[in-house]
Amino acid sequence: MKHFTSVNDVKNAREFVAAAGELKKDTYAFKHLGKNKVLGLIFMNPSLRTRLSTQRAAMNLGLDVMVMNFTGEGWALETREGVIMDGDKPEHIKEAAAVIGQYCDIIGLRSFPGLEDRDRDYDEELLKFFMDHSGKPVISLESATLHPLQSLADMITIEEFKKTRRPKVVLTWAPHPKALPQSVPNSFLEWARKMDYDLTIAHPPGYELHERFTGGLEGVNDQYSAFEAADFIYVKNWSSYRDYGKILSTDRNWMVSLEKLRNTNDARIMHCLPVRRNMVIADDVLDSDASLVIEEAGNRIYAAQIVLKEILT
Amino acid sequence: MKHFTSVNDVKNAREFVAAAGELKKDTYAFKHLGKNKVLGLIFMNPSLRTRLSTQRAAMNLGLDVMVMNFTGEGWALETREGVIMDGDKPEHIKEAAAVIGQYCDIIGLRSFPGLEDRDRDYDEELLKFFMDHSGKPVISLESATLHPLQSLADMITIEEFKKTRRPKVVLTWAPHPKALPQSVPNSFLEWARKMDYDLTIAHPPGYELHERFTGGLEGVNDQYSAFEAADFIYVKNWSSYRDYGKILSTDRNWMVSLEKLRNTNDARIMHCLPVRRNMVIADDVLDSDASLVIEEAGNRIYAAQIVLKEILT
Amino acid sequence: MKHFTSVNDVKNAREFVAAAGELKKDTYAFKHLGKNKVLGLIFMNPSLRTRLSTQRAAMNLGLDVMVMNFTGEGWALETREGVIMDGDKPEHIKEAAAVIGQYCDIIGLRSFPGLEDRDRDYDEELLKFFMDHSGKPVISLESATLHPLQSLADMITIEEFKKTRRPKVVLTWAPHPKALPQSVPNSFLEWARKMDYDLTIAHPPGYELHERFTGGLEGVNDQYSAFEAADFIYVKNWSSYRDYGKILSTDRNWMVSLEKLRNTNDARIMHCLPVRRNMVIADDVLDSDASLVIEEAGNRIYAAQIVLKEILT
Repeated sequence: MKHFTSVNDVKNAREFVAAAGELKKDTYAFKHLGKNKVLGLIFMNPSLRTRLSTQRAAMNLGLDVMVMNFTGEGWALETREGVIMDGDKPEHIKEAAAVIGQYCDIIGLRSFPGLEDRDRDYDEELLKFFMDHSGKPVISLESATLHPLQSLADMITIEEFKKTRRPKVVLTWAPHPKALPQSVPNSFLEWARKMDYDLTIAHPPGYELHERFTGGLEGVNDQYSAFEAADFIYVKNWSSYRDYGKILSTDRNWMVSLEKLRNTNDARIMHCLPVRRNMVIADDVLDSDASLVIEEAGNRIYAAQIVLKEILT
Repeated sequence: MKHFTSVNDVKNAREFVAAAGELKKDTYAFKHLGKNKVLGLIFMNPSLRTRLSTQRAAMNLGLDVMVMNFTGEGWALETREGVIMDGDKPEHIKEAAAVIGQYCDIIGLRSFPGLEDRDRDYDEELLKFFMDHSGKPVISLESATLHPLQSLADMITIEEFKKTRRPKVVLTWAPHPKALPQSVPNSFLEWARKMDYDLTIAHPPGYELHERFTGGLEGVNDQYSAFEAADFIYVKNWSSYRDYGKILSTDRNWMVSLEKLRNTNDARIMHCLPVRRNMVIADDVLDSDASLVIEEAGNRIYAAQIVLKEILT
Repeated sequence: MKHFTSVNDVKNAREFVAAAGELKKDTYAFKHLGKNKVLGLIFMNPSLRTRLSTQRAAMNLGLDVMVMNFTGEGWALETREGVIMDGDKPEHIKEAAAVIGQYCDIIGLRSFPGLEDRDRDYDEELLKFFMDHSGKPVISLESATLHPLQSLADMITIEEFKKTRRPKVVLTWAPHPKALPQSVPNSFLEWARKMDYDLTIAHPPGYELHERFTGGLEGVNDQYSAFEAADFIYVKNWSSYRDYGKILSTDRNWMVSLEKLRNTNDARIMHCLPVRRNMVIADDVLDSDASLVIEEAGNRIYAAQIVLKEILT
């Protein structure tokens, strides 16, 4: 594996997810792989789960880690070509990426969409720059449009808890006070399709995701029927792709509560966290055995670890 | 030892302090204990001494360390039960604590009192949440009302420098421009009583500490007589417990200077640092051999290390 | 080597630079040296290259690293003697340096000039305080007036790429929108003189550097003639030493472009980075094989590593 930015960087998703499950059973078996190697983690936005889980994964493999936080610290990078840099941006991304590539053996990059210019966000400029200019393998720690390590952890979790060979998996939109990226649902769909789950998408009108990720599967606007016989319900807010970055619905009826799980197949509830209680998911779900959100967060370690292992071998 | 939040988590304080002294003589003897284990350090307030000394202690035991600074970074955690999280707090402490527990084997937590609502501060809500929800051993790196690692380092220092079996130890209030917590004096008293030192407390009227920590020992308002024949003088400012969080005295006559040590038993001066020179303690003391403040800061390593060692074994 | 703050701490600059080149060939040969030792890195200003390269160098030697960022975090240190600390500075540098010395075996310090009071900047007060009060070896990670690790990396790079025994090396001023320190050019000249390069300095009138660094070599005001037959051109902006900290010229004709390299001896272009493209150096140079800026940044690792190795042995 050269870079890891989406499910498309993985030869066989099912085998990859299974290999992560194996790794979880013998966490330190490959600690020799990271010897004398350094992972650099670059955060253009604050991160808790992603930083800690990736750092832990690296430690499990014997890698050293250097963390760079560029959130609000005024480390503004110029990305335009040919510009005269006489403003407030002291460094061009070409140099920044190449220099970081000199100091690290693998680079993890967290970027974020502006949610204003759709083409620009979906072009993944920052990620591409680092792949083109750093000279080192780049791992997406969430990009403008995808969150592959999260999705990989989600798949590991589903495989761990599924009770049937081909579970019914529902991705449902839920309300949220802020406009959020489409990266988690985009990426979840890409991975879940490769896993060949029985997939359903539920969201209010206007929240359709790009066909590249849905694979043409149409979303339903009726959450109740979508949940019927579900084995897993993946709850997540996202802003509109069509009316890009906009909040089209604030309908709190889309919140997932215990009552809504009645006609499911004892569905387990997933969410990438952080989750706003009683807004996205109700307390009665999060505090019940139906919730897998902590186990899912725990699997972020093994998602990052299998990716790092693949790159190191 | 499960958690470490006060002297009450230690079976025998004198033996524990002695064991820390032994550890100091052979710092790397237990480096195997931390293998494949990670200590997570969470700071809700900035920290210099506590972070560095605990990090060093962890390294001495072969532990990996992950540091999380949540100071002013807008990582606002919701702590209330049952609330609809539609405001500016993106995550509930229940999830945050449980997730961090997934990534770390031991958790160190630094919190701080608001100094406005006494009951709330003395309830130690944040510390309790992490103990209840993380599933991992929690070490207090200073809580709203106690600073046990500091006090343990203080005891190690007294044992190292005492010239009599049962030294006279004076805790004295000193002036300060800002309202400070009671955590250091509260904790110092808890530990010093377990060590069975000959204890005296001196402070202006209104600065009485809670009986749970003084054990009923009444403070005197005359610093001069308190210092008589003292072996150790522990200098510290704190705000009022009675008029909670208030500064009741700005009397600079309470500053400790060399002249005041005349009728002591060549008393050594201690302070947890940072210390405001010529406000809390005079230059002539801090620059003299009477001062133990640097040695005391150095012992923070062994305080943290013996606690980590106990948790790891 | 006790401390490392300038070329004067090195016995023989040429041998030292050669030794760094050797280290680069066998990066992990001395990984045992750092065992059970901790390097503390203190940044009074943000840093990318310096932190990462020094951290990597430390890892290559088996050292543990603790990073302290005091940039804008309100960790204001008092440095004046005898003052009553009743203002906004909670700690005196005497205690801070001594305490950090308790926790670290080697200290790296990054400070920065105020560019207002020349005598104060050139007095290097902060660096001296740490050397005097920490009790540990101190490495300058750039001080108010010198940047010795950068210069050492520059020398390693010149030695690596030179085609003649005694190359012609030109230090040229270039325009910049902000007032910058003289530390990089000061330090570059000190080192280049010890290496006995054929040295030329070019800058607009008023940008003369202190004789202590130029060794009496007068700068020329004609960049064109200065570049003639040059083997290496070191491009850097600095503010005036005479009119201290002032920008005296904004003449963009001093920018280095490919066209200007015509009458050189296929000169290689160097810069310490970050570099403002098309302001200091043109795209056509930075994107061409003439540029050595990335290799130069890479050599920061070996500069830091040879210094750490010397201190450890």
